[in-house]
Amino acid sequence: MTFSATDHAAMAQALALAARGLETTSPNPRVGCILMKDGRIVGEGWHRRAGEPHAEVHALSMAGSAAQGSTAYVTLEPCSHFGRTPPCADALIEAGVSRVVAAMEDPNPLVAGRGLARLRAAGIATQHGLLLQQAQELNIGFVSRMTRGRPWLRLKAASTLDGKTALGNGASQWITGEAARRDGHRWRARACAILTGIGTVREDDPQLTVRAVPCERQPLRIVVDARLEISPRARILHGDPILIVTASEDGPRIRALEADGHQVVVLPNAAGKVDLPRLMQVLAERGLNEIHAEAGLGLNGSLLREHCVDELLLYVAPMLVGDAAQGLFRLPELASLDDARRLRIHDLRSIGDDFRLLARPIPPAEAA
Amino acid sequence: MTFSATDHAAMAQALALAARGLETTSPNPRVGCILMKDGRIVGEGWHRRAGEPHAEVHALSMAGSAAQGSTAYVTLEPCSHFGRTPPCADALIEAGVSRVVAAMEDPNPLVAGRGLARLRAAGIATQHGLLLQQAQELNIGFVSRMTRGRPWLRLKAASTLDGKTALGNGASQWITGEAARRDGHRWRARACAILTGIGTVREDDPQLTVRAVPCERQPLRIVVDARLEISPRARILHGDPILIVTASEDGPRIRALEADGHQVVVLPNAAGKVDLPRLMQVLAERGLNEIHAEAGLGLNGSLLREHCVDELLLYVAPMLVGDAAQGLFRLPELASLDDARRLRIHDLRSIGDDFRLLARPIPPAEAA
Repeated sequence: MTFSATDHAAMAQALALAARGLETTSPNPRVGCILMKDGRIVGEGWHRRAGEPHAEVHALSMAGSAAQGSTAYVTLEPCSHFGRTPPCADALIEAGVSRVVAAMEDPNPLVAGRGLARLRAAGIATQHGLLLQQAQELNIGFVSRMTRGRPWLRLKAASTLDGKTALGNGASQWITGEAARRDGHRWRARACAILTGIGTVREDDPQLTVRAVPCERQPLRIVVDARLEISPRARILHGDPILIVTASEDGPRIRALEADGHQVVVLPNAAGKVDLPRLMQVLAERGLNEIHAEAGLGLNGSLLREHCVDELLLYVAPMLVGDAAQGLFRLPELASLDDARRLRIHDLRSIGDDFRLLARPIPPAEAA
Repeated sequence: MTFSATDHAAMAQALALAARGLETTSPNPRVGCILMKDGRIVGEGWHRRAGEPHAEVHALSMAGSAAQGSTAYVTLEPCSHFGRTPPCADALIEAGVSRVVAAMEDPNPLVAGRGLARLRAAGIATQHGLLLQQAQELNIGFVSRMTRGRPWLRLKAASTLDGKTALGNGASQWITGEAARRDGHRWRARACAILTGIGTVREDDPQLTVRAVPCERQPLRIVVDARLEISPRARILHGDPILIVTASEDGPRIRALEADGHQVVVLPNAAGKVDLPRLMQVLAERGLNEIHAEAGLGLNGSLLREHCVDELLLYVAPMLVGDAAQGLFRLPELASLDDARRLRIHDLRSIGDDFRLLARPIPPAEAA
């Protein structure tokens, strides 16, 4: 399947439109649409929020009768089912669009290809796979939820060059600079939820809100607190309601938290800790696409060991604090480097005086 | 002082020529020279080895009578004294060069400016400061030795993302990949000497030679061995002679090593360890410009604490091994992040599947 330079340019623009919904479309995917006719854009649109019109509807409405005979570029296969809005495939057919190019098929294996099939059945030429990788990256959490039944978990950490997140005495504020902090909040803003552990709540008493950058809606905050030890005075309990995940069945404590509007989910594993893989399923069932974890070395280590980490977002400050300080991950001591958790560098760049690394664990099967 | 585009291009070319002497000019600086006349290069040269002709001499010899009225671009101010070769300033005057542009003045404060003054006295127009920073970087060790009386010490280390150089059991081979290893050998090759500690000799039994890339001459190898514990069977003792630096006055052991052709220098400090700052002076007195250190966390920590590290060359493998493994630097536990050793990122790039960071400690005065 080949695409022209015009096709590429139009789809790149549709992707840029889609990205405008980065913080708001959840649980829906981010989608953009461009309608082109005779080399000119006659309509464009992007999906802002669940329940509001899809990208295609906005673009068709802008184009009006000019949609007739146009090519539609959509970053995701048009839907073919009645959800909160009527099927976009039908709207494109009705408007007389003559060709539809999708960056990717619907990632839900149960519906993939149905929208395009419906268009083809109506005599419309269809193609897909243009800028596929960019489209998948843009909706990495939605794709993960649809294909794996779990969200995409991005673990954020800030460390020194020698891999330390805090001094032995716990001092950790301002390891990285202001630019890294702002960048970190940008990643928080695009996530559906921010996940932390009781250790971090106890030691840093964070709010875990998006403050350093504008944000259209605050992500849900989730605290993993196996023994339900969270202090009623914790700052995180005194804003929007949060979700507390525990292994404890302490009824009075659970009811007290719920009375304050918070949600409590009990998910014990055999060891009496929180069942993290099960938690990932539960979060997916709740429609959460991207999870942004910011925790200490204990929960970080558990998430990594239990294969819940899809991506490491690491800010590194060019400083050295020595071996006595606190590390990034608590893991069982390894006997061989063959047992190291290997990652693949996805992105590496300077951020202010610091640098930032995005890396993704390589599945053990592939690393071997 | 302004320079034309032609000036810039010519000096860039002179710097590229100079870099051809990267591995061989020591203790001399790397120097290149371009002679331009009527927009054409009429002569070029670079210094290969101490005792052989300087860059200017090669360029003048290539230009012959065309040197008359030309502009000479030299990466370092032409010498004005009789060393192993006659002064280049005189040679340029004799050849009738009409203008001399130097990237930088002689870094030795006792002679800086004399070569240019001699040219000016002969009626030649002179300028300096063109591509100054590049010229200083190219001879960073020579500049350090001339201005500070110590070599430039580049500390090379390879670590995991969580700052570990080896597992708890010592396993450290192949943390980083083949591309990083080759790159590391390239840095070894340009150094005048490779420095390590007795711990590394004992644990890894390295050769510390340049093998992964071609190299015109092997750097001197130096082992810091405070108590003179090196095993006669250590591989490093069975190639070219090495330099052993100790705090021990064990005559028989010293004589045994010397009988095998090795050199032993006794430099104790008050604590009975090797006096590292004094060692740096001694290495400078021996004409060593760039030192490449590859050691374990003990010597790494000591070099850092005693302000002997000018640059950190860190290869990072995208893998995690957990908190129980061995770290990069042994340092006293810090009470405040204000006491962290801060560095400035000089270069950051991917190398194969790994990445590489060059960073330079910020002097405490500047960091405050």
